[in-house]
Amino acid sequence: MSAVTAPTHNHSTGTTAPGFEDVRAEFDGYLADDPNYSAQLAVYWKGQLVVNLAGGDGLRNDTLTGTFSATKGVAAIALGTLIRSGALDLDQTVVHYWPEFATHGKEKILVRQLLSHQAGLVNVDAGLENEDILDSRRAAPKLAAQRPYWRPGTAFGYHGLTIGTFMEELVRRITGQSLQELYEDSIRAPRDIDFWLALPPSQEDRYEALRPAHPTAEQLAMISQSPTSPDGLGALMFNGVNNLVPPNLGPYSPNLREVRAAGPAALGGVGSARGLAQVYAAAIGLLGEALLDPDTVAEMGQQQVWGVDRVLNFPTAFGVVFMKPHPGSDFGSFRAFGHDGAGGALGYADPLYDVSFGYIPLQMQLPGGADTRALHLSQTVRTAIRQS
Amino acid sequence: MSAVTAPTHNHSTGTTAPGFEDVRAEFDGYLADDPNYSAQLAVYWKGQLVVNLAGGDGLRNDTLTGTFSATKGVAAIALGTLIRSGALDLDQTVVHYWPEFATHGKEKILVRQLLSHQAGLVNVDAGLENEDILDSRRAAPKLAAQRPYWRPGTAFGYHGLTIGTFMEELVRRITGQSLQELYEDSIRAPRDIDFWLALPPSQEDRYEALRPAHPTAEQLAMISQSPTSPDGLGALMFNGVNNLVPPNLGPYSPNLREVRAAGPAALGGVGSARGLAQVYAAAIGLLGEALLDPDTVAEMGQQQVWGVDRVLNFPTAFGVVFMKPHPGSDFGSFRAFGHDGAGGALGYADPLYDVSFGYIPLQMQLPGGADTRALHLSQTVRTAIRQS
Amino acid sequence: MSAVTAPTHNHSTGTTAPGFEDVRAEFDGYLADDPNYSAQLAVYWKGQLVVNLAGGDGLRNDTLTGTFSATKGVAAIALGTLIRSGALDLDQTVVHYWPEFATHGKEKILVRQLLSHQAGLVNVDAGLENEDILDSRRAAPKLAAQRPYWRPGTAFGYHGLTIGTFMEELVRRITGQSLQELYEDSIRAPRDIDFWLALPPSQEDRYEALRPAHPTAEQLAMISQSPTSPDGLGALMFNGVNNLVPPNLGPYSPNLREVRAAGPAALGGVGSARGLAQVYAAAIGLLGEALLDPDTVAEMGQQQVWGVDRVLNFPTAFGVVFMKPHPGSDFGSFRAFGHDGAGGALGYADPLYDVSFGYIPLQMQLPGGADTRALHLSQTVRTAIRQS
Repeated sequence: MSAVTAPTHNHSTGTTAPGFEDVRAEFDGYLADDPNYSAQLAVYWKGQLVVNLAGGDGLRNDTLTGTFSATKGVAAIALGTLIRSGALDLDQTVVHYWPEFATHGKEKILVRQLLSHQAGLVNVDAGLENEDILDSRRAAPKLAAQRPYWRPGTAFGYHGLTIGTFMEELVRRITGQSLQELYEDSIRAPRDIDFWLALPPSQEDRYEALRPAHPTAEQLAMISQSPTSPDGLGALMFNGVNNLVPPNLGPYSPNLREVRAAGPAALGGVGSARGLAQVYAAAIGLLGEALLDPDTVAEMGQQQVWGVDRVLNFPTAFGVVFMKPHPGSDFGSFRAFGHDGAGGALGYADPLYDVSFGYIPLQMQLPGGADTRALHLSQTVRTAIRQS
Repeated sequence: MSAVTAPTHNHSTGTTAPGFEDVRAEFDGYLADDPNYSAQLAVYWKGQLVVNLAGGDGLRNDTLTGTFSATKGVAAIALGTLIRSGALDLDQTVVHYWPEFATHGKEKILVRQLLSHQAGLVNVDAGLENEDILDSRRAAPKLAAQRPYWRPGTAFGYHGLTIGTFMEELVRRITGQSLQELYEDSIRAPRDIDFWLALPPSQEDRYEALRPAHPTAEQLAMISQSPTSPDGLGALMFNGVNNLVPPNLGPYSPNLREVRAAGPAALGGVGSARGLAQVYAAAIGLLGEALLDPDTVAEMGQQQVWGVDRVLNFPTAFGVVFMKPHPGSDFGSFRAFGHDGAGGALGYADPLYDVSFGYIPLQMQLPGGADTRALHLSQTVRTAIRQS
Repeated sequence: MSAVTAPTHNHSTGTTAPGFEDVRAEFDGYLADDPNYSAQLAVYWKGQLVVNLAGGDGLRNDTLTGTFSATKGVAAIALGTLIRSGALDLDQTVVHYWPEFATHGKEKILVRQLLSHQAGLVNVDAGLENEDILDSRRAAPKLAAQRPYWRPGTAFGYHGLTIGTFMEELVRRITGQSLQELYEDSIRAPRDIDFWLALPPSQEDRYEALRPAHPTAEQLAMISQSPTSPDGLGALMFNGVNNLVPPNLGPYSPNLREVRAAGPAALGGVGSARGLAQVYAAAIGLLGEALLDPDTVAEMGQQQVWGVDRVLNFPTAFGVVFMKPHPGSDFGSFRAFGHDGAGGALGYADPLYDVSFGYIPLQMQLPGGADTRALHLSQTVRTAIRQS
């Protein structure tokens, strides 16, 4: 292991195993280039924590912060334990588990379609209330009563808020538990994983608030050129059409204690990069017995949809909940599965390399989704393994 | 209401209700900028005609002219009355209503697929004759005998001419009437709507001929760069491959009396912008009882297909017959439905705003589809309502 | 016929019928422009060989060379004779013919999906061995046991190597013969067609090795900009992820005698341009009775998939095995069907024009797929016929 150095604006703190020196050099390069940059990076490879770095103002290796949609991947691993046990069958209809869902032609929607952004239920006509996002018991009946915005099976588009409701409702219907309880009891606590869905008060003093993005002129130009509509499906998905007000992620920020306390599966996860990599390592068995057997991993990691996303209007690819690598987002091999989040976080496992990866920036990045630096670091990690 | 002024090249004639001044200012700006510009614009909001403007050489508020494919939206509203009554079931097979259609693997095609450009019947191998376009009783048996150009269910592409045949044939099979008669008897005449499918001789003196486009150098460059093939599916759709001659919309121009007299559902509608907005207002109940109940509106307005159109080779989105807004054509909210036409016309209803919209340029615009000025005016209308 | 001239670097050798002078002029232009250019071009029209040209260093009209994936079209014509006879039903499940295929949710995959790049079996997790590519009896059981990389029916992407395995396995299961034997006995030998799947030793002295590409600076820039991943689906398809080594077509080059001798359906065909055009002419009946009746031609030529290819990441369109023209590759009319190959070869038939076309460059072209000069020559041929 390389020496542990004190954190500064210019150097990372933490450790890298022999062979992963290029990863640290690249990470340090980002710190040197951008005085606002602060992030954590952790990589497990074949049972070892081979990279565990942090750098930038406000961040140590053991700091906890928010991850927005990278949470979805952690929640999907919890859900995957029900697929493994057979309690949840991807080829069943949603109605089999959730009878109230059977309205407006939704009777035939399969669980695998619901969990891969194909149901066309990105919101409800009247707009979900902020409380609905934090408590899926309020959101679920509204979504069950809604007509899909596209004919199910003919399109897909990111259900940024509601896919969390779907996961939570399925867990509740099958187990009687909340998804957060399932995660805590079956996955996090037994392994002391440093990533929470519903952060307990005892961990609050470790939380460091996410910092607002400082977009570059180039990023601002890119954002201002992207097609935006105040009343299209994209705005609807982010709950921005409700009462015809502009979209605002503010009410769902993990910087709010009520969001962290609820830990909704769509966006409320809190942890360290090591914790994020730990969950994925546990999923594929890099740290003891695998949470998900190879069949479940392959089934959830199989691409279900790919192409230009109807909601986001750029290419995305999804397996069952998990994002899949594709030419527009090369975060891993054809066997990798993971999820990124607004702000730039990225977590994934890649069975081709026996690797798991967690990356969390404290300084939020625009335009959202995995920080391009995270994608480059992932490529550097895989190159290091290929050359080992 | 603002004062009615005399039409000039620089100012509009007509009225705008308080709160819609920006719409008129924008419209007047277009007139001032382009001496060739001439168009009508009408907007109904919650039962009131809040915008009714005309401007440019040759156009008054009560002038009638052609609308090309914007006609399809009006025809779809007529068809929608059969969906509302249950006479036409979108989830039935086409063959249920039209037994001769059952050739070459078309037995399983659903009505909703036929009416959303999915059947792959953009023409027939030998090419439809011009008379077929004006009389769907001639075209229908040819299309029933044709093998789809793509595997039904695997692609979609604009059936610019033949979707009119499909609508007309379904109405004929179900009611025994022509679609034009259904529209006249059930919709237009009872409400004195200023838009015709099959213009009667008595209205002929109100018709003003559409004027050929004066494309800018920029538009010409864009058109010359677009991929064109003299024998591909795009040329086939516009009936240009028949006898290997180039495509030519000339025989279908509403400037020809026989086209206006027949009023084919694909392209032969004639009216004023007020009339176009009137039909959509009647559809969603802005003017008395709604022609289409909320379920029918939602069913027809649900997106059936979206993506790069196989025929047009750019992104389009369709519900049942109606076009849907999408990032490439932001004409309304996620609940809006309508249709544009070659030359630049645009008609739509948007239940989110309780609004309907009609726009008809006399001076045709390139490259076809909704005039970009119509899209901007639509956004200005919606902004005005959000701020009201 | 024009005079036969001696081959030089600047002029073609061969013949063109009256009316096709522009084709020769264009071909000679390419020879004059590029001293490295060498290619054969042959066109049958209504029973006549109207174009038969060769030019450039090393190529005569009767030279044989390799065609890479243009082979797939020839193999598909052989397979088509089983569709014509009813021995192979495109709407049957693959499992009906190949029971071992029934693993990992592949039970419902239809033959037409398997043969149009929809099965998601672009390789196997461990990577196929080079011997598997040359002998489909080794590859088939591995593919039968593999889980699809995408949910069948939700995407398509070029199965550059394995679609050959699929064709060969289906022929073997149905006839007991190899596809190569079926082609030789039923198609090539009776018609003395100058194109082989499995080149016999007796023809070896006619073989001239393909020459490596001399990409221009512009081509190199295009290639270096294209998204490449060492471990994505594209690399997997080209068998480049096996043991994490970069992709390499070397082991499959027809310049190797073992590749020519095996003649795998995916890439091992050897012939002259005249031979390639001959096969397609025989398919649609330009030279005596058609191998494939109009129904089979229409069925195989019907577009099955179109859009951005998940593996190649650019737009492609396929019928049953055959490529279809589309705006990104305008090689024929809406009724044409054919296949191109790495290096630049192109073969097709176009029933709209009663034409077949063969083009084979000796000097390989980048970035692969039909040489853009072949596409232009095809357009010139079709223009000549339209004006005849």
